[in-house]
Amino acid sequence: MIIVMKRNAEKSLADRVIDKIESLDLKPVPLFGTERTVIAVIGDTRKIQKESMSALPGVDKVMSVVTPFKLTSRDTQKEDSVIKVNGTRIGGGTFTLMAGPCAVEGEDMLLETARKVKSGGASLLRGGAYKPRTSPYSFQGHGEKGLAILQNAKNETGLPVITELMEIADLKHVEQYADIIQIGTRNMHNFRLLKAVGMSKKPVMLKRGMSATFKEFLMSAEYIMKEGNQNVILCERGIRTFSDYSRNTLDLSIVPMLKKVSHLPVIVDPSHGTGKTELVLPMAKAAIAAGADGIMIEVHPNPADAVSDGDQSLNFEQFDNFMEEIKPYVQLAGLKMQ
Amino acid sequence: MIIVMKRNAEKSLADRVIDKIESLDLKPVPLFGTERTVIAVIGDTRKIQKESMSALPGVDKVMSVVTPFKLTSRDTQKEDSVIKVNGTRIGGGTFTLMAGPCAVEGEDMLLETARKVKSGGASLLRGGAYKPRTSPYSFQGHGEKGLAILQNAKNETGLPVITELMEIADLKHVEQYADIIQIGTRNMHNFRLLKAVGMSKKPVMLKRGMSATFKEFLMSAEYIMKEGNQNVILCERGIRTFSDYSRNTLDLSIVPMLKKVSHLPVIVDPSHGTGKTELVLPMAKAAIAAGADGIMIEVHPNPADAVSDGDQSLNFEQFDNFMEEIKPYVQLAGLKMQ
Amino acid sequence: MIIVMKRNAEKSLADRVIDKIESLDLKPVPLFGTERTVIAVIGDTRKIQKESMSALPGVDKVMSVVTPFKLTSRDTQKEDSVIKVNGTRIGGGTFTLMAGPCAVEGEDMLLETARKVKSGGASLLRGGAYKPRTSPYSFQGHGEKGLAILQNAKNETGLPVITELMEIADLKHVEQYADIIQIGTRNMHNFRLLKAVGMSKKPVMLKRGMSATFKEFLMSAEYIMKEGNQNVILCERGIRTFSDYSRNTLDLSIVPMLKKVSHLPVIVDPSHGTGKTELVLPMAKAAIAAGADGIMIEVHPNPADAVSDGDQSLNFEQFDNFMEEIKPYVQLAGLKMQ
Amino acid sequence: MIIVMKRNAEKSLADRVIDKIESLDLKPVPLFGTERTVIAVIGDTRKIQKESMSALPGVDKVMSVVTPFKLTSRDTQKEDSVIKVNGTRIGGGTFTLMAGPCAVEGEDMLLETARKVKSGGASLLRGGAYKPRTSPYSFQGHGEKGLAILQNAKNETGLPVITELMEIADLKHVEQYADIIQIGTRNMHNFRLLKAVGMSKKPVMLKRGMSATFKEFLMSAEYIMKEGNQNVILCERGIRTFSDYSRNTLDLSIVPMLKKVSHLPVIVDPSHGTGKTELVLPMAKAAIAAGADGIMIEVHPNPADAVSDGDQSLNFEQFDNFMEEIKPYVQLAGLKMQ
Repeated sequence: MIIVMKRNAEKSLADRVIDKIESLDLKPVPLFGTERTVIAVIGDTRKIQKESMSALPGVDKVMSVVTPFKLTSRDTQKEDSVIKVNGTRIGGGTFTLMAGPCAVEGEDMLLETARKVKSGGASLLRGGAYKPRTSPYSFQGHGEKGLAILQNAKNETGLPVITELMEIADLKHVEQYADIIQIGTRNMHNFRLLKAVGMSKKPVMLKRGMSATFKEFLMSAEYIMKEGNQNVILCERGIRTFSDYSRNTLDLSIVPMLKKVSHLPVIVDPSHGTGKTELVLPMAKAAIAAGADGIMIEVHPNPADAVSDGDQSLNFEQFDNFMEEIKPYVQLAGLKMQ
Repeated sequence: MIIVMKRNAEKSLADRVIDKIESLDLKPVPLFGTERTVIAVIGDTRKIQKESMSALPGVDKVMSVVTPFKLTSRDTQKEDSVIKVNGTRIGGGTFTLMAGPCAVEGEDMLLETARKVKSGGASLLRGGAYKPRTSPYSFQGHGEKGLAILQNAKNETGLPVITELMEIADLKHVEQYADIIQIGTRNMHNFRLLKAVGMSKKPVMLKRGMSATFKEFLMSAEYIMKEGNQNVILCERGIRTFSDYSRNTLDLSIVPMLKKVSHLPVIVDPSHGTGKTELVLPMAKAAIAAGADGIMIEVHPNPADAVSDGDQSLNFEQFDNFMEEIKPYVQLAGLKMQ
Repeated sequence: MIIVMKRNAEKSLADRVIDKIESLDLKPVPLFGTERTVIAVIGDTRKIQKESMSALPGVDKVMSVVTPFKLTSRDTQKEDSVIKVNGTRIGGGTFTLMAGPCAVEGEDMLLETARKVKSGGASLLRGGAYKPRTSPYSFQGHGEKGLAILQNAKNETGLPVITELMEIADLKHVEQYADIIQIGTRNMHNFRLLKAVGMSKKPVMLKRGMSATFKEFLMSAEYIMKEGNQNVILCERGIRTFSDYSRNTLDLSIVPMLKKVSHLPVIVDPSHGTGKTELVLPMAKAAIAAGADGIMIEVHPNPADAVSDGDQSLNFEQFDNFMEEIKPYVQLAGLKMQ
Repeated sequence: MIIVMKRNAEKSLADRVIDKIESLDLKPVPLFGTERTVIAVIGDTRKIQKESMSALPGVDKVMSVVTPFKLTSRDTQKEDSVIKVNGTRIGGGTFTLMAGPCAVEGEDMLLETARKVKSGGASLLRGGAYKPRTSPYSFQGHGEKGLAILQNAKNETGLPVITELMEIADLKHVEQYADIIQIGTRNMHNFRLLKAVGMSKKPVMLKRGMSATFKEFLMSAEYIMKEGNQNVILCERGIRTFSDYSRNTLDLSIVPMLKKVSHLPVIVDPSHGTGKTELVLPMAKAAIAAGADGIMIEVHPNPADAVSDGDQSLNFEQFDNFMEEIKPYVQLAGLKMQ
């Protein structure tokens, strides 16, 4: 940690900072520059509250030297994490496609979609039973009944299931039916939910919050891993920016950055990332080229009848074309289709 | 709702849109422009999924005409909502000051702070027992013990208490001790939590999500009110932008906009909104001038020892000055100190 | 400057950094932490390219300690700069109101507006002769003819004039007619234009770029001052964010921050900052309360006929009300109406 | 254009809007909904100022139906534009690589780099003679001398040259030496400069402004084309967002969106788009996969000695690897290396 004193801070103020550092069993190294005094702190500064140092009189700013990542960091684990789910593998050189409707709307549409995406090569079926909706007047998902419908589709097609958990109270149900528990973008900062799934035995896919920084994203994964659940998958799904032609701004650069700093697998969701059916395929290709371990997309038998996200879902014909088009990119990236 | 067809969309596609509108018991009015066909929809279009209309072949874009706000809207209730809390009133011409430490760190510091802010003129004591922290390795709050400490401070000073709820499981405890339940910025999109506090008898202060649009903010209030709890207070606390000199960008323009569209009271939090002690006072004045019904600030006996938010907390001397400085602005805005 | 080496960087890489620092006649101070080596640099590091240090092998990140501001900084000049313009003063305890139409549309409308704002208490007349417009098919301003119209209005009312300069080639014309040259938000990064007005004798009002950081804003002022023109006024006019209910997000916190770091006067433009007539008054009050030295607003005899910015202009009745409403805020802020 | 009246607007206000529409020789179609009156406007509404309609009393909002793009639009020209530059072609199925240093620092370094990138397969040499720098105290480029150095490198290697123009006064020099004139991100809104290069015979590459919307980006291209210069290339180079791990957020989704709406070629600059050497290659691959017609990158013989952008430049070894790695992506995208 580096503590920069104000330009004209008196020596007594620097002394007070030095005392505080020593009181925390750390070693202060004062550097007297031409304009300012800077105090470097030697030792494990993770235990210091950066804000409380900034609050000391005479302190101008405080800069961290160490990164805050522990369990998620490649410093801790060099090799890629591989998450095993019902015989499929996520990360470590395999390509994962998660596909299905935004919401589980009914038995028939889900089964039809599950068969379709299975035959096309998907490794997981997605579908929401609990739906986070901006408006309380919109369809909120079929809840437990939706989970049961997912189970049927899984039984028939053999596809493992990923579905969103919104609330701790539903964990026992979701755990029972889901092969991967999804934490949505609106809950990336719901730390209690993160702790709860950290105590689950099921793998967790954590979607990036729509305004989460790189650090906040990994720290949320850290919350889950700290409770003992090492099977965490990261998912970039677009961030909030001023740019208004797409629903979100898909931040693909985070893929190689995450792969460098962390050992966790990274999935990209171009459906939510763009909000436009026509952008899903090109951005899926781009995501694979950028180093993603997999893609999550929305597929619906009839997007115009979808209760949500109709304008970013692929219909079956578009899905067929999607699969054909991405295969060479998967191959080129050195990934194995499952 | 206005549905704009693509430039060269064939008539059969417009017909399909018209059929769909009629199937929903709404009235389509096609308008044939020089370049495009536009189809206006007459009737209560709130029941239509905008996305499913966009997903129809040939549709270029769909624009909403009606606003989605119901219970929060001034169209529904003309006069200002006034929230009554233990003898104090929020909104409707009174000025509310909520003050206290970021976190309840201990009995002594809280009591000392409570006495201070009470004597300075605060109407509510703030203090977190459950703390949302970016890092799982940071102090997470004293939980129930913290709530009990708040209760003691309330008993001694008579100040009602506002404290954050992070999880439904804690609701019964928080409800017991808190006079106002705070929903933090990270949970503004935690719809299940919103529904839960919507069923509570306690007033709720809803903080704007750090990347929430105007519409999303009010729709989250709508979630609470729809469950029956009409005592909702809105709080602007800064949004995420590229601008990096302040912790957040305090979006004060939303104050007059909220007051125009909604009847709910609006509080501004310049401590989180700026993240810098020295900006708290000027931005509090500005918030009052912009029409806020009150201010929430962080006060700590010794910010340099605070376990969180030390660099945005006022010490007691700064608090005294703060109170003196804002009083004429409160008066000028036509508000009554309580 | 603080140079942080990568976690496992070999000693030879740190040595190379140390050599480079010494070759620049600066003093390196290596600090060997528990996890990483950090190298502090003593001396005037403003001459080092931060990026070229980051590019050295083994370097993880480089952090600046000194601020880059020179001529704009309060460290250089303690007391407030006061800009004198035709008998009026900007900054240093006086309140400045700049008012007038977005564009100089014609002789009559300008004269009518000039008389109105003069009698209401404005100290400067605004009006664009050269207009930056998103579309090449929109009205681009009357150019030199517009400048002459401004001159007439000035002659008749005695109001000094502020108008925008978009291009160096127009400088000699604009200089001749304008009392203050305005550099618009789209040109805050037009460094050649900044240099050109830096060589002018006329005061310059520099509007913040719509995505400019605090540092970039002051550095652009630094460009002007470095050429010899000390009469620079800063203007906050809203930034680009995801928030879509207002045209821009007016970042009022920058007012006290600028006043702290720099000695230059700060004006706020709530017309562009919000884009909505109804928000202009509350945000003008808020700006004054936050410490602004003045306000710039758009006034038009008939906003519905305006060729640009009609939806953020005040009509004459609204202007009268505006003046009456802000006066007590000006007084409370301790500023003198001129 | 669709004009939405306020909820309780009196009929007389709607009548006034209707009168105004008729006075503009357009046809109003009033629609009386359950809650509001909506007035559709039939005819070429591009001539109406949206803002002046919003400014009419009783109007709540105004929505455009038509897109504002003319010359840049695929509606105007179906087939891809192909820009021919000294025997190379940009767009229309060929792959373009523009490579070279950020700034022309000297004769030797430029020649060395030009030879390197030529032999590696670049089709154009980039290098700045005029440099836009945040600080007036940073190196501002060698100006005309830099242009002459570029000329020498071109003469020796045969590589056509792209270089940035910052100011109209330099146009005649830049035109003489450059094969493509680059308009940088900070000048995308410098409309006078756009008009000037619109009158040039040289092709222009227009970089997206760091906070430019999709519409603003294409409208700036429209400025150039309107003056007669049809040879415009668009370049995505990252936008400003809250996300702080990369210098900018590279918005790759805009590539397929631009290719759909416009016939102009699209280049991506992952060097500025990410600001980090290690992210350049993965994002270049992603850009090609997303449909880009080419890539612009920074290459420097010794990035640690670069006067600018050292931390995002590739050294020669990295460049060799870059070329090898992207080739299969170029091929897969169906583009022809030149």
